[in-house]
Amino acid sequence: MIFDHPWLGPLFGDPATVDLWSADAQLCHYRAFEAALANALAACGHVPAHQGRDAAEVVERAEIDIASLAEASLRDGLPIPDFVWQLRSQAGADAAAIHTGATSQDVLDTALALTLRQVTDMLMDRLQALDARLARLASEMGDAPLMGRTRMQAALPITVADRVRSWRQPLRDHMSGLDASRPRVERLQLGGPVGTRHGFGGDGERIAAHMADALGLSAGPVWHTDRSAVAEYASRLSLITGSLGKIGQDVALMAQQGLDEITLTGGGGSSAMPHKSNPVLAELLVTLARFNATQLAGLHHALIHEQERSGAAWMLEWMILPQMSVATARALGAAQDLCSRIERLGS
Amino acid sequence: MIFDHPWLGPLFGDPATVDLWSADAQLCHYRAFEAALANALAACGHVPAHQGRDAAEVVERAEIDIASLAEASLRDGLPIPDFVWQLRSQAGADAAAIHTGATSQDVLDTALALTLRQVTDMLMDRLQALDARLARLASEMGDAPLMGRTRMQAALPITVADRVRSWRQPLRDHMSGLDASRPRVERLQLGGPVGTRHGFGGDGERIAAHMADALGLSAGPVWHTDRSAVAEYASRLSLITGSLGKIGQDVALMAQQGLDEITLTGGGGSSAMPHKSNPVLAELLVTLARFNATQLAGLHHALIHEQERSGAAWMLEWMILPQMSVATARALGAAQDLCSRIERLGS
Amino acid sequence: MIFDHPWLGPLFGDPATVDLWSADAQLCHYRAFEAALANALAACGHVPAHQGRDAAEVVERAEIDIASLAEASLRDGLPIPDFVWQLRSQAGADAAAIHTGATSQDVLDTALALTLRQVTDMLMDRLQALDARLARLASEMGDAPLMGRTRMQAALPITVADRVRSWRQPLRDHMSGLDASRPRVERLQLGGPVGTRHGFGGDGERIAAHMADALGLSAGPVWHTDRSAVAEYASRLSLITGSLGKIGQDVALMAQQGLDEITLTGGGGSSAMPHKSNPVLAELLVTLARFNATQLAGLHHALIHEQERSGAAWMLEWMILPQMSVATARALGAAQDLCSRIERLGS
Amino acid sequence: MIFDHPWLGPLFGDPATVDLWSADAQLCHYRAFEAALANALAACGHVPAHQGRDAAEVVERAEIDIASLAEASLRDGLPIPDFVWQLRSQAGADAAAIHTGATSQDVLDTALALTLRQVTDMLMDRLQALDARLARLASEMGDAPLMGRTRMQAALPITVADRVRSWRQPLRDHMSGLDASRPRVERLQLGGPVGTRHGFGGDGERIAAHMADALGLSAGPVWHTDRSAVAEYASRLSLITGSLGKIGQDVALMAQQGLDEITLTGGGGSSAMPHKSNPVLAELLVTLARFNATQLAGLHHALIHEQERSGAAWMLEWMILPQMSVATARALGAAQDLCSRIERLGS
Repeated sequence: MIFDHPWLGPLFGDPATVDLWSADAQLCHYRAFEAALANALAACGHVPAHQGRDAAEVVERAEIDIASLAEASLRDGLPIPDFVWQLRSQAGADAAAIHTGATSQDVLDTALALTLRQVTDMLMDRLQALDARLARLASEMGDAPLMGRTRMQAALPITVADRVRSWRQPLRDHMSGLDASRPRVERLQLGGPVGTRHGFGGDGERIAAHMADALGLSAGPVWHTDRSAVAEYASRLSLITGSLGKIGQDVALMAQQGLDEITLTGGGGSSAMPHKSNPVLAELLVTLARFNATQLAGLHHALIHEQERSGAAWMLEWMILPQMSVATARALGAAQDLCSRIERLGS
Repeated sequence: MIFDHPWLGPLFGDPATVDLWSADAQLCHYRAFEAALANALAACGHVPAHQGRDAAEVVERAEIDIASLAEASLRDGLPIPDFVWQLRSQAGADAAAIHTGATSQDVLDTALALTLRQVTDMLMDRLQALDARLARLASEMGDAPLMGRTRMQAALPITVADRVRSWRQPLRDHMSGLDASRPRVERLQLGGPVGTRHGFGGDGERIAAHMADALGLSAGPVWHTDRSAVAEYASRLSLITGSLGKIGQDVALMAQQGLDEITLTGGGGSSAMPHKSNPVLAELLVTLARFNATQLAGLHHALIHEQERSGAAWMLEWMILPQMSVATARALGAAQDLCSRIERLGS
Repeated sequence: MIFDHPWLGPLFGDPATVDLWSADAQLCHYRAFEAALANALAACGHVPAHQGRDAAEVVERAEIDIASLAEASLRDGLPIPDFVWQLRSQAGADAAAIHTGATSQDVLDTALALTLRQVTDMLMDRLQALDARLARLASEMGDAPLMGRTRMQAALPITVADRVRSWRQPLRDHMSGLDASRPRVERLQLGGPVGTRHGFGGDGERIAAHMADALGLSAGPVWHTDRSAVAEYASRLSLITGSLGKIGQDVALMAQQGLDEITLTGGGGSSAMPHKSNPVLAELLVTLARFNATQLAGLHHALIHEQERSGAAWMLEWMILPQMSVATARALGAAQDLCSRIERLGS
Repeated sequence: MIFDHPWLGPLFGDPATVDLWSADAQLCHYRAFEAALANALAACGHVPAHQGRDAAEVVERAEIDIASLAEASLRDGLPIPDFVWQLRSQAGADAAAIHTGATSQDVLDTALALTLRQVTDMLMDRLQALDARLARLASEMGDAPLMGRTRMQAALPITVADRVRSWRQPLRDHMSGLDASRPRVERLQLGGPVGTRHGFGGDGERIAAHMADALGLSAGPVWHTDRSAVAEYASRLSLITGSLGKIGQDVALMAQQGLDEITLTGGGGSSAMPHKSNPVLAELLVTLARFNATQLAGLHHALIHEQERSGAAWMLEWMILPQMSVATARALGAAQDLCSRIERLGS
């Protein structure tokens, strides 16, 4: 609720990332799944070519009644049965090419994969931008002396470059980690009702390959109950915010009177003390790191998907993962903003 | 984001509880705080009587520019400095009676206390209603036999009444626990910039008592950094959802074919298997229990408020506590709904 | 493993509290339960008076083969079936008065209640001692000036007394909270195999009352699946360590060169920098607070006890709660030790 | 405490893994670090060749007074300053080649890397063994029919092979994930007091390379405050136990009377109901999964290492990571054991 709050939203939220999870964006992914399936069914000869093509067209331009989706989600626990019913009722004879062989989780998990691809794109861009900004900081202010501190005690002199190096180091790993995770995360889901693809005759793999290709996803085994990739992705999000939380904590410590190792422009004002300038963005980085660290446990509890498909564990993912991605994107944005406010580093 | 999602919102969210945390509701609490302070300052002779009264009136009817609050929150980390500035600029000479001696955290924490009072009211009502519904279930179906199961194995025969008794038992404790927590939770915050009430001369306690009385809150010591009551409240929320999660887990187990110990009307449909009727609400209770159990850790990490007031730890509360309260209210609503769908219990 | 590690144990552990959870102590509680049950069965006429007395004597002095308990626990998931078998095989004809009507969980949960009573005793003593020590600090150094800091920025001058007051405030609440929790936590468990006490004819309540009286516990309803009191207790432990974590964080911040608001004797040495004196105990308080905040989530996930008794959720309690109690006791000890090392407070 | 408990230890613990974290094993790693450093200092000309060799020999065979380490750890927060002092005092003139340029964290983090290498070896072996056992189950019983269940409701028929495939699938990923993590996890730590390797003149990289080679670790940048690899490793541990928790949950559900989809030998007995056979190992898998999911949050909170080295965040790793590794190893052992007790699968 905080991410789109009228006045807290701008501080905590990230509209571009919130949009990736919006109803509109998700609906668009649902359509993409069903269109890709219709086309794949045709390509593999399960329905006539024209039927597949026509069905795909219906899927892309069908009017979807959101109120009906809402009512149905409350009843069914998810919107897909009603979504499919709406599509089919607009498809006439082409209904046979819609959702055939698939199950609700195929649609929602594939939509998740498509969303996470976009989230990753955005995070990669921001990681790169932040890394570049830190590199500039290091080149501009790196020679300034700084007291190295360990266990919160003055230890030995270092330079600003040393400190900034420790800030940058994990960012590179996060970029390569995110990149390496793409094939596992950006993966089609196509299992059918009990994960066996039995509704496709022996053609499950071919249809999956066709769909994956159309959607720009990897094909691979069904992952209805194997949520490792989701939990790993969440772990990466928390690693990123953790690394940024370290920067935020350092900045908040450097900004203390008595240490005075940083000058920031545009710090936060106080209702009672006009002389104060609070390092709000630095604090926010710590908050977001602790938020994500907390959430991560939930996604690991959600690994226990019983039998062929779980409702309870799966719904827990829906509650947590979008929030973690917004918190991560926001942290990267806030870190960039914080860096751009640094006028002086070192003592 | 899920709580007000166009189609997942009805399943996961609770509009009445979301409203309690809405911008409008919060703004209303901010006004109540500042009006109570203006009146208390007058009552204790810190400002002339008419000034206090006039300031309170300005506070209640001032136009607040939300866009400005949003912009300022991003800069200041919270909306109050700008809110106070807006009030004062509309109060003319009466500005002296507005926010004097207080700090931003006083306003936001008092707004929290006022919100939690309403949350508690709602939870109490729903606990009572659920308890009554379970009592009715027990009286209607209590004599039916049921296999008692321990460690998920058939143990010895019990009755439906025995099982329902175990569902009801913790609800009573939650009601008395919530009730007992009221004085600690529904407590005025008034500490001033560094928690010492020094801006009120020696009158801090009198002013606080006056305000508390006007707002229907308890007075008591400043709790800027003592977040125990907040974390305890969150623990109670998680205890409630935990108890309901147990009911949900039991129902999902009872609904298994092979056990067939429950008949539910209106279960969830499947996109692939029209014959299925999924125990969606039962699963949801488990999901919400695990959601709150996860979140609770975050509020306990947020206990570490450094020095006189923390930014980072405090903001973490804002991210988590509203969600937990919505999840709890929703769980109670879903549990009631689930109970009303029970047509048969026992074997 | 860290709590009794050869060299980390003294830092992280608390031998007196570890002892409360030791095998010896637990075995002693198991005996107490079975003896109380034997006596109660006799008192209520379920077995002849001499049989109850003799059985209780056997229970108290029976030789227990630990290797057998270990082997059996691996097989049965808990030691009680074998423990009872060992008792009965040494009791001859009096075996009829041993464990009759009870179940394993009755023994283990009652042992837990007896252990937590002792844990609470210890925590109360230490809370009181710490509070007294802080009171002395306040009276000795309270007048010293200190810069009040909010959001980690210098705000307005306060005194050492103000800061110490914020440290003491939650301790009082923890004492009254712990005390108030006693009747709910220190409660007999006696439900029998499926929680209905059916093995006692209609005498379950009388037998429970007799046993509770003998063991110094409260009687009350069966709590096989209602783990609220356990989770609440854990929450209290985490509240305590959270409050101490705040003290630790404050001390670590005060000890920074540049702030120099505290002088500690006997700080930690460094292998590379002999000039350093690290505020080890202050850091430890933060560590223990975050440890308990993390653990607490586990105990709330463990609220979901399915059906009449759960194995999986219950075993999670065993893994977590003892650790939390040791961490809490250690934090209180470390806080006392830290206070006694304070030579100077304020600037 | 549970892992080496006299009778719960065999159920929850894993002695071979506990041993990897034992004081003896750790001391051995400390010696290996210091010997490698002495040799590297000599190889790079920082000390005379004979001095390096002699110092390395002293390090390997020096008598270490454990009581002194314990006392010193309580004072210093870690054992290394005293350990180094003990080594040096036995090295006479060769003391100059001992620990020179290094800091305590270098020793402890390198010891961690060496330990995790062994943990990984063990986990890889067990993953492989479990995978093989599941493959055998599939080949022996795979054709048996099984009702596919989704959202805990009967869906469509599958075979035992389908279910077992979903159990095996994540194991492969965990093996390749563990293997891929080796270079990042099994990495030398050598930063010196403030992470700059300044004590080695310009030779830090050469000395690090020499040491890494001797210890069989990767060289690379200093990771004093970049704990990503540690948190990622912990995430992998929790992924493994999560996958096994799914197996455990499935088995417990299959073992229900009414479903009867599995026959297990040697299930757990009950103290009250001799007819029962509890699926203890299946439940244990769920418990261990939830234990690790809970712990993981703590290691992500511990990502926020402030400045050049943190005490508080680092110590939290020590409390949590060893436990997670034992829980994971135990879960793999228990899963193997559980599989070997399966006499029948399917209905």
